[in-house]
Amino acid sequence: MTKPRLLLIHAFSLPETARYHVRPFTGAKEKVLMNFAQIERLLADVDWDLHPGAAATHGDWPVEKREEFLSVGLNRLPIVREACEGRRYDAVVLLGGGDPGFAEATEIACRHGVPVTSNAHAQMHIAAMLGSRFSIIDISEAHNMRMADLVVQYRRRERCASIRNIDFPLPRPPYDQPHSVQAEKEKHERGEPSAMLEAAVAAALASIEEDGAEVLIIGCSAAFWLCEPLAARLRALGWEVPVLEGYRCAIEMAKLLVNLRLTASALAFPADNVVRKRVRKFA
Amino acid sequence: MTKPRLLLIHAFSLPETARYHVRPFTGAKEKVLMNFAQIERLLADVDWDLHPGAAATHGDWPVEKREEFLSVGLNRLPIVREACEGRRYDAVVLLGGGDPGFAEATEIACRHGVPVTSNAHAQMHIAAMLGSRFSIIDISEAHNMRMADLVVQYRRRERCASIRNIDFPLPRPPYDQPHSVQAEKEKHERGEPSAMLEAAVAAALASIEEDGAEVLIIGCSAAFWLCEPLAARLRALGWEVPVLEGYRCAIEMAKLLVNLRLTASALAFPADNVVRKRVRKFA
Amino acid sequence: MTKPRLLLIHAFSLPETARYHVRPFTGAKEKVLMNFAQIERLLADVDWDLHPGAAATHGDWPVEKREEFLSVGLNRLPIVREACEGRRYDAVVLLGGGDPGFAEATEIACRHGVPVTSNAHAQMHIAAMLGSRFSIIDISEAHNMRMADLVVQYRRRERCASIRNIDFPLPRPPYDQPHSVQAEKEKHERGEPSAMLEAAVAAALASIEEDGAEVLIIGCSAAFWLCEPLAARLRALGWEVPVLEGYRCAIEMAKLLVNLRLTASALAFPADNVVRKRVRKFA
Amino acid sequence: MTKPRLLLIHAFSLPETARYHVRPFTGAKEKVLMNFAQIERLLADVDWDLHPGAAATHGDWPVEKREEFLSVGLNRLPIVREACEGRRYDAVVLLGGGDPGFAEATEIACRHGVPVTSNAHAQMHIAAMLGSRFSIIDISEAHNMRMADLVVQYRRRERCASIRNIDFPLPRPPYDQPHSVQAEKEKHERGEPSAMLEAAVAAALASIEEDGAEVLIIGCSAAFWLCEPLAARLRALGWEVPVLEGYRCAIEMAKLLVNLRLTASALAFPADNVVRKRVRKFA
Amino acid sequence: MTKPRLLLIHAFSLPETARYHVRPFTGAKEKVLMNFAQIERLLADVDWDLHPGAAATHGDWPVEKREEFLSVGLNRLPIVREACEGRRYDAVVLLGGGDPGFAEATEIACRHGVPVTSNAHAQMHIAAMLGSRFSIIDISEAHNMRMADLVVQYRRRERCASIRNIDFPLPRPPYDQPHSVQAEKEKHERGEPSAMLEAAVAAALASIEEDGAEVLIIGCSAAFWLCEPLAARLRALGWEVPVLEGYRCAIEMAKLLVNLRLTASALAFPADNVVRKRVRKFA
Amino acid sequence: MTKPRLLLIHAFSLPETARYHVRPFTGAKEKVLMNFAQIERLLADVDWDLHPGAAATHGDWPVEKREEFLSVGLNRLPIVREACEGRRYDAVVLLGGGDPGFAEATEIACRHGVPVTSNAHAQMHIAAMLGSRFSIIDISEAHNMRMADLVVQYRRRERCASIRNIDFPLPRPPYDQPHSVQAEKEKHERGEPSAMLEAAVAAALASIEEDGAEVLIIGCSAAFWLCEPLAARLRALGWEVPVLEGYRCAIEMAKLLVNLRLTASALAFPADNVVRKRVRKFA
Repeated sequence: MTKPRLLLIHAFSLPETARYHVRPFTGAKEKVLMNFAQIERLLADVDWDLHPGAAATHGDWPVEKREEFLSVGLNRLPIVREACEGRRYDAVVLLGGGDPGFAEATEIACRHGVPVTSNAHAQMHIAAMLGSRFSIIDISEAHNMRMADLVVQYRRRERCASIRNIDFPLPRPPYDQPHSVQAEKEKHERGEPSAMLEAAVAAALASIEEDGAEVLIIGCSAAFWLCEPLAARLRALGWEVPVLEGYRCAIEMAKLLVNLRLTASALAFPADNVVRKRVRKFA
Repeated sequence: MTKPRLLLIHAFSLPETARYHVRPFTGAKEKVLMNFAQIERLLADVDWDLHPGAAATHGDWPVEKREEFLSVGLNRLPIVREACEGRRYDAVVLLGGGDPGFAEATEIACRHGVPVTSNAHAQMHIAAMLGSRFSIIDISEAHNMRMADLVVQYRRRERCASIRNIDFPLPRPPYDQPHSVQAEKEKHERGEPSAMLEAAVAAALASIEEDGAEVLIIGCSAAFWLCEPLAARLRALGWEVPVLEGYRCAIEMAKLLVNLRLTASALAFPADNVVRKRVRKFA
Repeated sequence: MTKPRLLLIHAFSLPETARYHVRPFTGAKEKVLMNFAQIERLLADVDWDLHPGAAATHGDWPVEKREEFLSVGLNRLPIVREACEGRRYDAVVLLGGGDPGFAEATEIACRHGVPVTSNAHAQMHIAAMLGSRFSIIDISEAHNMRMADLVVQYRRRERCASIRNIDFPLPRPPYDQPHSVQAEKEKHERGEPSAMLEAAVAAALASIEEDGAEVLIIGCSAAFWLCEPLAARLRALGWEVPVLEGYRCAIEMAKLLVNLRLTASALAFPADNVVRKRVRKFA
Repeated sequence: MTKPRLLLIHAFSLPETARYHVRPFTGAKEKVLMNFAQIERLLADVDWDLHPGAAATHGDWPVEKREEFLSVGLNRLPIVREACEGRRYDAVVLLGGGDPGFAEATEIACRHGVPVTSNAHAQMHIAAMLGSRFSIIDISEAHNMRMADLVVQYRRRERCASIRNIDFPLPRPPYDQPHSVQAEKEKHERGEPSAMLEAAVAAALASIEEDGAEVLIIGCSAAFWLCEPLAARLRALGWEVPVLEGYRCAIEMAKLLVNLRLTASALAFPADNVVRKRVRKFA
Repeated sequence: MTKPRLLLIHAFSLPETARYHVRPFTGAKEKVLMNFAQIERLLADVDWDLHPGAAATHGDWPVEKREEFLSVGLNRLPIVREACEGRRYDAVVLLGGGDPGFAEATEIACRHGVPVTSNAHAQMHIAAMLGSRFSIIDISEAHNMRMADLVVQYRRRERCASIRNIDFPLPRPPYDQPHSVQAEKEKHERGEPSAMLEAAVAAALASIEEDGAEVLIIGCSAAFWLCEPLAARLRALGWEVPVLEGYRCAIEMAKLLVNLRLTASALAFPADNVVRKRVRKFA
Repeated sequence: MTKPRLLLIHAFSLPETARYHVRPFTGAKEKVLMNFAQIERLLADVDWDLHPGAAATHGDWPVEKREEFLSVGLNRLPIVREACEGRRYDAVVLLGGGDPGFAEATEIACRHGVPVTSNAHAQMHIAAMLGSRFSIIDISEAHNMRMADLVVQYRRRERCASIRNIDFPLPRPPYDQPHSVQAEKEKHERGEPSAMLEAAVAAALASIEEDGAEVLIIGCSAAFWLCEPLAARLRALGWEVPVLEGYRCAIEMAKLLVNLRLTASALAFPADNVVRKRVRKFA
């Protein structure tokens, strides 16, 4: 079997000198892909490239608001188009919580027979395979609302038990955040207590015990590092619950679609020259 | 009572020399606002300006695909921001079927205390005041899908009986469409039969008699001229049914919100400095 | 533009000597319309009359139970019919939480081309324009149930995050209530603490933080005075949330419908001589 | 086991001289109860009385419009109250399609520990025991809408596949209907073809084959006679499907509730002196 | 009226020597039917037999897991088939929480014109007659999940406010449970405090006050004894709420169906020789 | 990366001499796995074994009725248990439309950390990745009902546009079917017209054009051969629509779960010794 060829595309890139920095934007793909150690195994049977993301035009800070998602979503579409037209990839994997530009990228790619996957979308689909309802453990009020929009757009309202805010927002002007997701990760890696992890444990317990969640989803890619530590803490408390981050879910879903030779339905993303009529209904 | 000051913003503008032309893009506001004769009355008690729309960057044809909606949506946000920061308007009315950039414009404007309305959004809200379910009479498969996305995003699935395609797509390369929404309107105005109106009557009858619609919504602004003729034809057939186009609905909803001094909830569009936590649930 | 002519109709009237008195029943319309100071502005561009409500036949106390709503609902239909037949009004505004007789009044009026609006109905529609879910802050268990019935009848279940009881029931035999909504309002106006306002703040916080509400609705007209003070208290606590009372919502919705020349769909309120068949479906 | 004591209450009564007459209003209870031959068996193990219905005040024609349902609903409440206060009955059975006054009668009776049943309500509950979705075969557009209201109020939308109109409206001024439900029943009993039965068969086939119904409900008591003939016709066509009329369903449901010593929950119909607080949620 | 002939069938039987014993498996039917004193009255007007249940093949402990429900469900189908073929019963009543084999038994019996009822199914239907939402008070995590499956299969999700676990699991290897449902019942009967009853009261209060339940259902037959004491305790606390156990509900529902001559729809349980086509839809 | 080790388990096996034969039950795994030519590619990167299915105890015909699904579901659980206890497999793939024993197999396997996939379950999950709603093209009324049960149990009602019956039932006593799924496949392979394929095309067109499906699922494994020919026919008619059969979907979903090291949530399939309490809610 030929190895599937995947193009992973970050949501955006900032200059390395950007004031509000949240991850590496340049360098080897293994470094630019956060949490590579956990993901490496899944990439062993594919050929993959990583695009660091189109240069951000909304500002020099990461993305949390709807306007910012719109901007970075549009900005990465040319990368998707070029990848499809170049016929060099079997699938496109959009990185980044909040799935900027996902539907539009799918519209472009499905004409070329190329499937597209994205973080929250893949997480919600895989969560549904594992339990009846999921909760989203997420970083800030603003990001929560983007995740809420996605729950609605992906028609997962009845599967979503809750979205809980652990209140570790991404840095942005004019604020000097008192805490940072980057620093929290490093603290945890040094074996020190992390207030972010503690907040995630509290939110997860409430999601399970009060809201009825059976699976947990991490909302923002800056918090994907919580995946294993959060699951471990919950296990120690008595709850054996799947915790899903987006990179691995999107990569594996891309491999599945490539193997099955599937893209999004051309009925959901119609071509220009439709020759028959149909009625569109909901339920 | 001071007159509310409204800024109407078209979805995009094309050069007057654009190959695929669907409406006037320059000139007096009364001319650039399509179907002004029907709308004039509603603007008598407001002060209003019309922005012809940001220059399109997606191409020289009108908007039907998701990528195009994303592009023109982003392009008009600076107009919204400037209008809000200039404090010259009490509300912003986004023109154009498919509501490009609506949520993002609302995010910007609600921080300034300025309500934003948009066509499909206003139509669906007003439709709900009048009957239990609505159908959307719409122009093409591609545009149908944008409307379907909006039905889902606005959480109106159970209110939407159907979306029916009358198959009069907007012009776009490489096609030379055999029919045109512009020409159809002119035919009707000259008292000649219009195949587009006939297709709309057929779609409306099926929506009412088979799908259970009690209210009808016109999907695309290029087809808003159908509003009165379609209602008249249905009345003659025995169905007294409200038919809603988007301009009037969005204008009146803007006046209502201004009068009530309301904008979108700051809980739906959170500010940066949220000081308490809440859980977000669905149903 | 001719001024719209509105008839506002109270839910019922009691003799001024009634033992259980909750508002003025006679006198100038500006006095009989509670909280006129807040509403006056919206009535500046309409011609309006106020009907004090049909004389109550259920007893000499205000309305909270389903039987009482049925009674006062039926009692005010002749007022609606006469107003429509007299062709003196462009719209009818039904006052009073719980919307007694609303569907039936609409049935009567829509044959005359006259739109009807009502408090909870208008509040729920306008709430949906502002955020994804609303909670109802309401006065008593019995009144809660009427509001719950309306949420179901108006098909707003998935939009209603919760109904919360602040437990300030209206006076009724044989009870001597320990507290009174009237007295609470006066206390607040004198700058004294009001237990009713405190209870509303607590209920509102729980609605927002636990139930997921993004908009708040006051359930009973006797509590509509809470609108501004409650919003102010929540703002001070960090939640900028729209709080809707029914009079203003119903008045503005009536103006919108008059301006758009719309009434309820004749498909939802069918005439006697329907000439085609259709199937009625749900979702 | 003591026999349960049931009071059956018709929806309304007209003078025997009324122009628009649809059933006997005076005489022996066995005659005033339509289709007694089919029902007799179920009344063998109960003590029962029949109230012919409160005298109609809406006019001298039967009930189809919402206003008329409101009127007859209110009119029969004193009969319910008196029956409960007299402690002579173990249950009240409200007769008549459209369930006028059902919720209000339940509110009154449950304080006395007396269960109340009603036609459409009992039919929809029993239909749910037998299959996943039901359709309502009903007589007119106006009556359809009352049934549609009940489907919504009883929270049975997802259980209702469709409401289909066979277009045999009840007589009312100013019309001289070309056909009559009474005459149709007599035709059928004489072995002649009945257009009403044929229309019901056509509606039922469409409900089963197109809409997905697994159980059928007759909407209006004037059409309850269709129950056996319709089922027989469908059986001959290959569909073995339960067809439910309201009298038998309401009587048996009353017996069930009496035997189980149950009434409606006092949480759904709260008493005045509630001592604890709760939050009311939907889903 | 001939007395209906009912066959009550237990979910399974264990040898009297089984290590994990929860009820009598042999002896007079009045003894083998748990809580007979409460049920006797309902059986006075029927002829009834009791089958103690097919011998368990899954082990010598009671049923809580899905695999165990599958096993005992299959094991009792021959009893159902024989009862139907022998034409000695008018209805089959399946005893035991969790409804093992219910759909399959219905499939068998409805070909013979014999209705089948089962505990949770009857409880959920009767609960819907009494209030808008119910909660299930249940004994263990594993049993909760079976009840949750039934809520979904019976399409009662929107009617189910919550399932709450009182954590009194049935005995099973290798555990030596610290508490026992049998012992708790005996304690209560001796007038001693029962931790199980206390846990049920706490779960019921939370269901009513936090989750919105208006009716309560006991999940497991081993806990059906809680029915009266739980209702009494809640009444004393101020909540007059129906509490339903499964035996009485299933018996009365069987009588209702026999009296109405109804079985499950043959469209839901199709015969082999279907002669027309239909489309199956959901909502 | 080590190759995942999969055990594929057929739903049941019949003696080769069985009267009603639908597929090979003995021989090389490549022969016993129907349509191996299409599937081979997906098995290249795994180690796999095939279990031909437990010997059927329900009769000598294939499975269509609920009772039969229950029987074969229980029969294959020991195979699943043994496979998990033997630690020789990383995942179990249950073959056969209708998913007999899937939940129970998952309950067993998830304690061993082994994921289980099944046909309809995998098809519905993958369909949801590709479009908003799917229809099921299925072989018979009886099999339709099993598929309908699964749609409900998997909580996919709002995703399922319809189930359409092509009326090619599996052979069973006492019938001598006039047509056979086996013979139809062979006809098609010989290049002859197949009435079964024609029926599937008609059902698919109706699903797309009338019901709103965007993805198609084949219901019964005996009809999985339709996958490619049906998609080709629809493509030729103008509809580019994904058509999913179950074997490939279940195999790829198993690989995805193995790679992600996921099994069903232990909250959905609780262990015996749960140490904390939670409330189970729906939506």
